[in-house]
Amino acid sequence: MKIIEGGVTAAQGFEAAGVEAAIKYQNRKDMAMVYSQAPCRAAGVFTSNVVKAAPVMWDKEIVEHSPAVHAVVVNSGIANACTGKQGYDCCRQTAEKTAALLGICADAVLVASTGVIGNQIPVEKLLAGVEKLAEAKEDSAEAGTRAAEAIMTTDTVSKQAAVQIELGGKIVTIGGMCKGSGMIHPNMCTMLGFVTTDAAISKELLQEALREDVVDTFNMISVDGDTSTNDTLIVLANGMADNPEIVCKNEDYYKFKEALNYIDTTLAKKMAGDGEGATALFEAKVIHAASKQDARILSKAVIGSSLCKAAVFGHDANFGRFLCALGYSGVQFDPEKIELYFENEEKSILIYKDGTAVDYSEEEATQVLASPAVRVLADMHMGDAEATAWGCDLSYEYVKINADYRS
Amino acid sequence: MKIIEGGVTAAQGFEAAGVEAAIKYQNRKDMAMVYSQAPCRAAGVFTSNVVKAAPVMWDKEIVEHSPAVHAVVVNSGIANACTGKQGYDCCRQTAEKTAALLGICADAVLVASTGVIGNQIPVEKLLAGVEKLAEAKEDSAEAGTRAAEAIMTTDTVSKQAAVQIELGGKIVTIGGMCKGSGMIHPNMCTMLGFVTTDAAISKELLQEALREDVVDTFNMISVDGDTSTNDTLIVLANGMADNPEIVCKNEDYYKFKEALNYIDTTLAKKMAGDGEGATALFEAKVIHAASKQDARILSKAVIGSSLCKAAVFGHDANFGRFLCALGYSGVQFDPEKIELYFENEEKSILIYKDGTAVDYSEEEATQVLASPAVRVLADMHMGDAEATAWGCDLSYEYVKINADYRS
Repeated sequence: MKIIEGGVTAAQGFEAAGVEAAIKYQNRKDMAMVYSQAPCRAAGVFTSNVVKAAPVMWDKEIVEHSPAVHAVVVNSGIANACTGKQGYDCCRQTAEKTAALLGICADAVLVASTGVIGNQIPVEKLLAGVEKLAEAKEDSAEAGTRAAEAIMTTDTVSKQAAVQIELGGKIVTIGGMCKGSGMIHPNMCTMLGFVTTDAAISKELLQEALREDVVDTFNMISVDGDTSTNDTLIVLANGMADNPEIVCKNEDYYKFKEALNYIDTTLAKKMAGDGEGATALFEAKVIHAASKQDARILSKAVIGSSLCKAAVFGHDANFGRFLCALGYSGVQFDPEKIELYFENEEKSILIYKDGTAVDYSEEEATQVLASPAVRVLADMHMGDAEATAWGCDLSYEYVKINADYRS
Repeated sequence: MKIIEGGVTAAQGFEAAGVEAAIKYQNRKDMAMVYSQAPCRAAGVFTSNVVKAAPVMWDKEIVEHSPAVHAVVVNSGIANACTGKQGYDCCRQTAEKTAALLGICADAVLVASTGVIGNQIPVEKLLAGVEKLAEAKEDSAEAGTRAAEAIMTTDTVSKQAAVQIELGGKIVTIGGMCKGSGMIHPNMCTMLGFVTTDAAISKELLQEALREDVVDTFNMISVDGDTSTNDTLIVLANGMADNPEIVCKNEDYYKFKEALNYIDTTLAKKMAGDGEGATALFEAKVIHAASKQDARILSKAVIGSSLCKAAVFGHDANFGRFLCALGYSGVQFDPEKIELYFENEEKSILIYKDGTAVDYSEEEATQVLASPAVRVLADMHMGDAEATAWGCDLSYEYVKINADYRS
């Protein structure tokens, strides 16, 4: 597996664009397009929220029933959620306009939105934006970056990743971009992710690989525990790498899955580290848990705790909060048996063992917690399962951003 | 039912004290005692956290097995949690010292702690504090207030309530004090609550009344979703009102329960409104839900959402966040059928209906959200059940308090 530069345009035959359509109040890029020269198989996972945005309902239908997907059109600024029939019509008009301009079918067009919930998108601006996108799209890395920038809301950096593998003697590329911060626990500004690949793979296996992979990647991050109405992760595979089509779970399938896992993990961590107001990536790793599910629940409880997050922000080795979060997660364990460590890239400090604090150096612990990437490691001494979850610290800035998001 | 002034000393035969024992770093009261002249029946509910503080383990044993309780000794500043055998010994020494001074049995003494997790309490200071308390205790309202002040940590106000009812021609009083902010979702600085009554009631019915009542009172508040290691709510009944003892679920039992519910609701709302950094009490009421359990889950999802809390802090009528929180609560419903209102003492504004925003006045909505007590009302149009949950807004101050709680 070779890590390369780029994003959604890294794989063969994919083009992208990012333009200003005046949907956001500032003069910022707010519409993106991903286009494949060849028809794609599409897989997707969507928000579990009962309140689903119009584009989520549109995309679920397309991913499940449409024979092929050719393009994705995204806007930021308004989420098109809680918008009733008018919101759904807006998706249809976007798809129809895109189809007419690109000479494809309307049911080959996916749409996605992110931004304020409850407002209607001005449809004329949206359709004018589609025209700009259709004209601007190209297969360069720069176009991929522009697309990644156009889907940002409160993100402070654009998020891309790409990787290459060899399957049956052919180079296969997977690239992706995302915005926001979460899938199961996303920031309300919504997690959107788009992964493109030139691999030839059956629709069923593409969907299965994606569904399995999100469990330990996008579903293991959290910024604030709020699951958005718009969360969407799409994978498009156009087969242009010309590899022997993956139609069963052979070696190629697992190589593909490993590469997909790299992309998903990389994008997921980028989202967690860029959580609203974050000053640090906050990782919780649980080892020797009784089951994989226990390990996931325990690690997510830690990164989801406001008090643990605030302790990381304050570089405060208040380790009781981390034990407390493990304790209320719902998983049973013996507090006397746990070991707790604070870690960064260079150091690992044992903090708690045998039911009480060990004689650690407060200064050293504070230093570790001041790192740009902080890890808390909990050794449960119960079994063989492990899991990692990613979040960020809780800062003044988070409150500021969210107390006045709309103005 | 008559609401009266006072707290834990309002009922006959109860004394209290609050003193400085130098456990906190500042010169602040940090130890409290509640003492009953007559032996009490005791009922208690405790944290569901797997990691339980030493005093919680001590008290569970006493409440379940001890024939009578005479006193409660509380310290603030250090939680005595994650302290192993040494922590439990500290509870025993406190009880033995109290017993020796007051001429009662050690198993008639409950203990409680709140503060930083993981540190050992300096036991000499604690025992010296017990001596001060034994000397200072008296049955005045002022002594009750000093006790209520001594159990505070990041609380900004002390929290008391008292009420009187008539049972079998006798005046029965129930009074209480609490600190912190939560029971199921408490602030890490821990919820402690102590309710005293002179009612004569069997131990079994006292425990049943308490267990049933917390479900819709203390368990319906949340400040930050973190369930402490120390949460404790104790009710002591000494029978000195001389009412006919309540030994079955007769009319007197339900009158008593109603009065207990008033005390618990009042104390719970005081905690929610004094959540760390809070500028407003934030109430979510769900009506016409399919079941009581659904109504509880829905209302708690709203007051537990960081984004809803931040919107209340910012007086921002970003109603989509409230729908979103209902949507990810886990309860199924049809978003098209919900009505959403923003309310304060004077006004109720319809915001959302038939799957989309109604034409409400933004200015008026902002005004309502700027009230010291903000209510969000969701009408689910599904059944007859309703529930109310209480929380507070999320402010810069919350982050500040928790980023540097120990220093």
